[in-house]
Amino acid sequence: MMSWKGWGDPDRAQALSPDMRRLVHDALGVRADGPGVPGLAELQLPGSQLSGQVADRLAAVVGASHVSTESEARIRHLRGKSTPDLLALRLGDLSDSPDAVVWPGSHGEILELLKLCTAERIAVVPFGGGTSVVGGLAPDRTGFRAVVALDLSRLNRLVELDEISRLVILEPGLRGPEAEARLAEHGYTLGHFPQSFEFASIGGFAAARSSGQASAGYGRFDERVVALTVATPTGTVALGQAPKTAAGPDLRQLFLGSEGTLGVITSLTVEIRPVPALRIYEGWRLPDFAAGSAVVRRLIQDGPVPTVLRLSDEVETALNLARPEAVGASGGSGCLLITGWEGPSNQVEETAQATRTVLRNAGAELVEGAGSDWAAGRFAAPYLRDALLDAGALVETLETAGFWSALPALYESVRQALVQTLGRAGTPPVVLCHISHVYRSGASLYFTVACAQTADPLEQWRLAKAAASRAILAAGGSITHHHGIGTEHRAWHHRQLGEQPVAVLRAVKRELDPAGILNPGILV
Amino acid sequence: MMSWKGWGDPDRAQALSPDMRRLVHDALGVRADGPGVPGLAELQLPGSQLSGQVADRLAAVVGASHVSTESEARIRHLRGKSTPDLLALRLGDLSDSPDAVVWPGSHGEILELLKLCTAERIAVVPFGGGTSVVGGLAPDRTGFRAVVALDLSRLNRLVELDEISRLVILEPGLRGPEAEARLAEHGYTLGHFPQSFEFASIGGFAAARSSGQASAGYGRFDERVVALTVATPTGTVALGQAPKTAAGPDLRQLFLGSEGTLGVITSLTVEIRPVPALRIYEGWRLPDFAAGSAVVRRLIQDGPVPTVLRLSDEVETALNLARPEAVGASGGSGCLLITGWEGPSNQVEETAQATRTVLRNAGAELVEGAGSDWAAGRFAAPYLRDALLDAGALVETLETAGFWSALPALYESVRQALVQTLGRAGTPPVVLCHISHVYRSGASLYFTVACAQTADPLEQWRLAKAAASRAILAAGGSITHHHGIGTEHRAWHHRQLGEQPVAVLRAVKRELDPAGILNPGILV
Repeated sequence: MMSWKGWGDPDRAQALSPDMRRLVHDALGVRADGPGVPGLAELQLPGSQLSGQVADRLAAVVGASHVSTESEARIRHLRGKSTPDLLALRLGDLSDSPDAVVWPGSHGEILELLKLCTAERIAVVPFGGGTSVVGGLAPDRTGFRAVVALDLSRLNRLVELDEISRLVILEPGLRGPEAEARLAEHGYTLGHFPQSFEFASIGGFAAARSSGQASAGYGRFDERVVALTVATPTGTVALGQAPKTAAGPDLRQLFLGSEGTLGVITSLTVEIRPVPALRIYEGWRLPDFAAGSAVVRRLIQDGPVPTVLRLSDEVETALNLARPEAVGASGGSGCLLITGWEGPSNQVEETAQATRTVLRNAGAELVEGAGSDWAAGRFAAPYLRDALLDAGALVETLETAGFWSALPALYESVRQALVQTLGRAGTPPVVLCHISHVYRSGASLYFTVACAQTADPLEQWRLAKAAASRAILAAGGSITHHHGIGTEHRAWHHRQLGEQPVAVLRAVKRELDPAGILNPGILV
Repeated sequence: MMSWKGWGDPDRAQALSPDMRRLVHDALGVRADGPGVPGLAELQLPGSQLSGQVADRLAAVVGASHVSTESEARIRHLRGKSTPDLLALRLGDLSDSPDAVVWPGSHGEILELLKLCTAERIAVVPFGGGTSVVGGLAPDRTGFRAVVALDLSRLNRLVELDEISRLVILEPGLRGPEAEARLAEHGYTLGHFPQSFEFASIGGFAAARSSGQASAGYGRFDERVVALTVATPTGTVALGQAPKTAAGPDLRQLFLGSEGTLGVITSLTVEIRPVPALRIYEGWRLPDFAAGSAVVRRLIQDGPVPTVLRLSDEVETALNLARPEAVGASGGSGCLLITGWEGPSNQVEETAQATRTVLRNAGAELVEGAGSDWAAGRFAAPYLRDALLDAGALVETLETAGFWSALPALYESVRQALVQTLGRAGTPPVVLCHISHVYRSGASLYFTVACAQTADPLEQWRLAKAAASRAILAAGGSITHHHGIGTEHRAWHHRQLGEQPVAVLRAVKRELDPAGILNPGILV
C-alpha cells in the first residue's frame, strides 16, 4: 500500500547518504531541516460533510463495507504526490480531504453512483493510484455539499486476452505491476514503465496520457489504447472498433487525457507485446547536451530506434554518475545517454550493434555500469525526494515538450527562469534536465529543481513554477508532456489553448456531466 | 483540372479492353450500356438561389473575380466521386449543385466569409480536391437560403519548412502532386499516396483522415499532423505545440476527421521524411487469403515491416494478375501480396531481404512483374470505373477495418451481404477484396463490387450498401477505415457511436458553428 505521507512503499523509504547530505549543505546551502510529517493520529481532519443519509444511499449501491468516512481512509485519498501536496501535508493543511471514500465494484455501480452524486450535488474524484503530481486529486468544492473519492482498486480484472490481435481488455484499477504479472502469465507485456509504474493504475495511465521510460520502443500509453468504456453521469460511452478509422473525429481522444472530468474509464483495450527475450541497457557519454541531442534526434528520425532513449544534461549527468561533488563545478563529465533495447534476442543484438555504430561515430564512449545502474534505480527517485524534504531541501520536477528546432531555446529559457526566480528568493537552485521521450519531430524536457526551502516553501515553489510556465509558453513548448494538467497547469493550459478550444472542452463537459460533479476545477 | 463528369484527367479516360468487355458480358451478365453522361451544355441546372446582394458582399471579401454563379463552376463543385454521385449526374440530377463558388485567398477571408454566411443563413461546403466518395460534398440545404462551395485551391503555399524537426507547414488547397513537388525541391516527401493522390488536397487528407498506400511505412495522414489552424464561424483555433503531450484531451483529433463540419483547416504542420533513395515493389503469391493474412499480421506485429503491404483475396488476385478469364473459376491463382520498401538504400536492401525470408517461410512465391505492374497502375483504377459505368456495369468500393481476430468473420459477412443482396436483385456480383492498411492489432478490408446495372442503379446500390453496412456493424468492424462518413455513412456511424458520443459531436458543433452553416447534414 502506498505511503500516506510520501512516496511509495513505506518500507523502502531511504535516508540521505553522507554524500547527498554534503551536497544539500554545500551546493544548496541548506542549514535547517524542513517541516516534518505529523503522526497520523495527530492530524486534525475537518469533519466529514457527507450526511448520514447520503452515506447510506452510497452504501446501498456498493455495500456498506465499501464506503468509509474514517480519517485514515480520507487521508489516504488526500491529494496526490507533487511536492506542494507533500508540503501541504507537512504543514498540516488537510483542507482537500474527501469527505468519504467509495470503492465501487463494477461499471454499473459507477453509473449509479454518478447519478446519485449528480442529484445530491456531491463532487466525485476518480482515484486510481493516487500518483498525480499536478493537483489532479484536489477538486474545487465550491457549490458542492461534499466530496467523495471514487477508489477504483476493486475494478482490477484482466477481462479478456486476444492473442491474435495482441490486445488485452483491462479494468482501470489494476496497478502497473499487477497488470504486468497477469500478462506475463501469458507471455505478454504492456511495455509501459513510467517512473510511477509501481503505484499508478492502468486507468490513470489513460486518463492522464502517461508516457513510459521505454516510449521510444513501445509508444505512449494513449497511442496504444484502441478502445475504452466510460461511465459518465449521463450514461455509458463505448468507443473503438478498429485500430484506426476515418469515422469522424476520434472521440477516444477526448477521454484519453480527460483526467476524470468527463467520465470514469471502466475498461480499456490496450495493445500488448510479447515479453522481450532480451533486454540490454547501456550508458554512453556524449561531449555535451547539444551533441547528445543531435545523436538522439538522428536515431529517432533515421533509425535504428532503441527501446529506451534518455539523455541527461551536464548537471544531471554529474549526479547520475554518482559524483555529486562535481555538481556546480565547471563540468567535464559530458552528458549521459541511456540506451535500451528490448525484444527478440537476434533483433536486439542487431539493433544494439547498429545503434552503437551511430553513437561511436558521434563521439560517444561507453560508460561501464551506467546502463544497469539506471535500470536498477529507474523507479526509485521519488523516494529520495521525501528524504530531501525532511532535510530542508525543496525538490520538484516539471516537464515540457517541443519540436526539435525549438528545443534548445526552450531548455535554456526554462532553466533561466528557475535559476533567476529561486536565486532572487535567496535560494539559488541546482537545475537538472533530461530528454526522456523522443519523437521524429521533437522531444520532451524533464527538469528537476533542488534548492533550500524558505520559510514558505509553497509560495517559493509557486513563484518558481509560474516563472517556468511563462517561459514554456513564451518558448512555444507544451505546458506538460506527460504529467497532465490537474489544477496546477489549468490556467496555463487554457492560455495555451485559446478561447474557442476551452469553450469546446466546456461544451463537452456540460454534455456528459451537466452538474459538473466530476473533478470540479481540474482541467476545465 | 479534374473531369466534371467522372474521375481525374479527361485525357486519361480509358475505354474497356476486349478482355474486360468480355468479363462484363460473361461474368456480370451485362447486356446493355448504362446511362451516358449528358453534354455540359445540355445540363439543366436549377437557378442560383444566391441573391445578387449577398453575392456582392461575398465579392467584397474575396474580390469579384473569386466568386462565380456560372453553370460550369457550379457543376464542377457538384458532389464528389462516388458511384452514386456519378450515376446521379448521368441521370440528370443536379439538385445538389451549389448556388455559387467562392475562392478565398487567406485565413482572414475565410473567417469573414463564415461570419457573413452565418448572418445570412448560407450553407458553406469546404471544397478541396472534390474526391469524396461518401457524399461529403452534398449538404442538406433545409433551412438555408443558399449553398456556397468554398474552393480552397488558392490556399496553396508551402508556408514553412523546418528541416531540423522534419516538419512542413502547408496550406490546405495544395493537391498531392503539387505538395510533393514543392517538398522534393528540398529532398523531402510526405509519403502519403492514397488512390486519390493525384487530385485530392492536403486539407482533405486531414479533414477526412486519409490513409495512403504506403501507410505501413509512413503511417496514416492524421497520425502525422502535429499542428493545425482552423477558421471556424466563431473564430480561429490553433492547436499543437509539440509532437505529443499530456495536456488534456487531444483537440486536434476533433478537427482531423471533421469533414469541414467544425471549421475550415487553413494550415497544417505535417511530418516529412527524406525522399527515399531506393524503392522496391514486389508481388508474392500466397496459397490463400488466410495464409496471406497470417503472414501480413506476422510482419506488422513482429517485423520486419515493409513500407507497403497489400494483400488481395483470390478473386481480386485473378483480376490483378490480368487473367480476368479466371474470375468465377474455382481459383487456383492464390492470393497476391504486394510488398514495397522505401528508404535509404542499405536499409531497404536489408529489410527487403529479411521480409523475403519471412515470406518464403510462409510458402510465398515471387510473381515476376507484379510489383512494378502494381506501382504503374496504383492511381488508375478509378478511370476504369467510368468506362464500366458506360458499359452498363455497376462498380463501387467500400471499406472497413477491424481487429485481427474479427477480420475473417467481417470479411465473410460483408462479402455474403453483397452477394446475397445483389443476387436477389437479379444481378449477381463479382466481389473483390484486399487488405490495404495493416496495424499491430488489426487491418482494413477494401471491397470492390461489380455487377450489371438494373433499371434503377441508385436504388440497387443503396440496398447493397445498406446490407454491407449492417454486416459491418454486426461483425464489429468500423463503418469506414479511410473513406470517411459524409452523408452516406452518417446514420450507420451514429448507430455505431451511440447516443452520448453523438451528443458530444453535436455539442462541439454547436459551440464552433452555432448556426450550423458548415456542411449541414454531413457527419453530424
